[in-house]
Amino acid sequence: MALIVQKYGGTSVGSIERITAVAEKLIATRAQGHNLVVVVSAMSGETNRLVALAKSLADPPKAREFDVLLATGEQVSMSLLCMALEARGCPARSYTGAQVHILTDSAHTKARILEIDDQHIHADLAQGRVVVVAGFQGIDAKRNITTLGRGGSDTTGVALAVALKADECQIYTDVDGVYTTDPRIVPEARRLDKLCFEEMLEMASLGSKVLQIRAVEFASKYNVPLRVLSSIEDGPGTLIAKEDETMEKALISGIAFNRDEAKLTLLGVPDKPGIAYQILGHIAELNIEVDMIIQNIGADGSTDFTFTVHRNDYKKALEVLNKLATELGVREIQGDEHIAKISLVGVGMRSHAGIASTMFKALAHYGINILMISTSEIKISVVVHEDFLELGVRALHTAFNLKEK
Amino acid sequence: MALIVQKYGGTSVGSIERITAVAEKLIATRAQGHNLVVVVSAMSGETNRLVALAKSLADPPKAREFDVLLATGEQVSMSLLCMALEARGCPARSYTGAQVHILTDSAHTKARILEIDDQHIHADLAQGRVVVVAGFQGIDAKRNITTLGRGGSDTTGVALAVALKADECQIYTDVDGVYTTDPRIVPEARRLDKLCFEEMLEMASLGSKVLQIRAVEFASKYNVPLRVLSSIEDGPGTLIAKEDETMEKALISGIAFNRDEAKLTLLGVPDKPGIAYQILGHIAELNIEVDMIIQNIGADGSTDFTFTVHRNDYKKALEVLNKLATELGVREIQGDEHIAKISLVGVGMRSHAGIASTMFKALAHYGINILMISTSEIKISVVVHEDFLELGVRALHTAFNLKEK
Repeated sequence: MALIVQKYGGTSVGSIERITAVAEKLIATRAQGHNLVVVVSAMSGETNRLVALAKSLADPPKAREFDVLLATGEQVSMSLLCMALEARGCPARSYTGAQVHILTDSAHTKARILEIDDQHIHADLAQGRVVVVAGFQGIDAKRNITTLGRGGSDTTGVALAVALKADECQIYTDVDGVYTTDPRIVPEARRLDKLCFEEMLEMASLGSKVLQIRAVEFASKYNVPLRVLSSIEDGPGTLIAKEDETMEKALISGIAFNRDEAKLTLLGVPDKPGIAYQILGHIAELNIEVDMIIQNIGADGSTDFTFTVHRNDYKKALEVLNKLATELGVREIQGDEHIAKISLVGVGMRSHAGIASTMFKALAHYGINILMISTSEIKISVVVHEDFLELGVRALHTAFNLKEK
Repeated sequence: MALIVQKYGGTSVGSIERITAVAEKLIATRAQGHNLVVVVSAMSGETNRLVALAKSLADPPKAREFDVLLATGEQVSMSLLCMALEARGCPARSYTGAQVHILTDSAHTKARILEIDDQHIHADLAQGRVVVVAGFQGIDAKRNITTLGRGGSDTTGVALAVALKADECQIYTDVDGVYTTDPRIVPEARRLDKLCFEEMLEMASLGSKVLQIRAVEFASKYNVPLRVLSSIEDGPGTLIAKEDETMEKALISGIAFNRDEAKLTLLGVPDKPGIAYQILGHIAELNIEVDMIIQNIGADGSTDFTFTVHRNDYKKALEVLNKLATELGVREIQGDEHIAKISLVGVGMRSHAGIASTMFKALAHYGINILMISTSEIKISVVVHEDFLELGVRALHTAFNLKEK
């Protein structure tokens, strides 16, 4: 008998039929003797409906009130799920973030969880109830309603699993696990049985939308096994856990990619201390997040400095750099918003050499020009022209034979 | 400078346009120097939408979860109203029933308010904020979400006015006040400037749908002046307050009516102690509410016993009486579900004779047969065939000259 926290996303509770299906799945799992705590998102479409109402009154709407509004979405789905369970004779009880005291900071619309009261939940479980908790929401110390930001229900699930010392946190979604890469690009992409937290973090931050980064970080920090599963089809899904001996000994676990970035290059930057800070300080002041940063020392005592930002921030960043050019003594500023980033991820890299050269060889074979390279312990990322994204991903998937286990 | 509690019903906050109009009205009232606490219902249509969702999953749905679901309706409208206020530079803050600790008993779907925490609200008012509170909802001692039943937002408004010692509780609705009778039946019906609580209670319990009986009782008990106003047009509305010297010295304030009842008559009931209890005890066991009860002693030592019930309960009541007939020694049982009740209401009756005879004369003039008569200190009710309802109401409105002030 295990204590399992299950999280169902908006699509999984998106209609009366889907809610009924989830209720029946829960009852079957409970019949196997497991204790269940369920976290639900708002029914798909509901959050968008509420956002549209708010925006038609005020844009941006007052953050405190926006959170009060959005929090109703999960409250609706949690109560409906409990009704479906109770109607089938399964005792159930729903709780808002406030009711189980999911204490957060006061950063409305992007609050962070500080503490959860597990007393109510343990008491209900002891009485044989399924406990259903609203995802995405909490309260601050003054009992104001807060929300955790888009996808925050994953974080609620993991935080509950941590607080309750659950055996596993299962994230039900509309895909049946984490794949070696996006099957829409590589049809023979393979579902991974197991990944370690570090790999999932790289995959998530590189564009795999299956899990929220914050939720994976949280699970990693407290070592709670996470499992990604389909709410539609039965299957083992993908387990994300601490790296261990039983872990698949693959060189490469997956290929992530991202076409949301743009790159900016400053050519002929005077090579003196503090110059990187001068450049990026001005970017940070505009609240623009920088992803990759590369600096090469040139022969003439000057340096070339390249970084990437989100494509939405490209124009703003280019503008500030053009203004700074003279002040910084930069020779030229170049920009490119038609780039894509492709990354190989795998803990196997730690102990294996030659991965990078295999990667570069595969890309060269198809005539794909590499614009930037960046590496970390378990990741190699390259930036290429966006036109070559799909071709590059397919070339790498084949080169590393990822369709075979 | 006054402290005013205003309650807006579902139609008044039924769309973005209406919410905007309410926000502007509030800002204008606040500019006159008043402190405002606002109670809102769910947007019109929203409660029905939620009920339909619930009923498609379980019928009846689990009461605890049904309350959790319905409570989201007011949470949506309160946050939207605050956004509209804040967007216009008016500081505002919304609170759910749980947040201002509207403590109720645990009777889900029909809970009663026990206590309200006024600390938060007073603190916000002191800081110049408009406070917006969700109507219709509260929490019980175990922090379960409860609701007060349909129309419960009126009760929330009055309860808040009592707790905050407000100067007036204003109920905004889609009519501009309480009328001498329903203007759909009598076009020259007149809006009343003032009514006393007792009159309003009689009017409400006799079918006038403007205010919830419970809210009027609450206001009367704690002597909080109530005012019914239109949220669409400006106007003085109708003030409902304690009877006093300044009260309009009318004989009759209004005419209420009701076509939801049916009558049952037991002829030739043995005239012995306990017989009324024997009859009505069986009716009460079926949870059927009885309205009027009339008993006449006959010449032959037997008695005739007539009472009215809601039309929905008529068949059930007739069935049980037919079963009881022999046991009770009753000669005959008659029923009529085509009746209507017309009532004259007015505190003036206390000190004036001749009201009843004027009433009966007016009805006789139009050949309207009176089937039952029942009186109280400030009310005379007659039961007639339902076909004569409109004619009877018009005849009485004219006979008592109610169109003139």
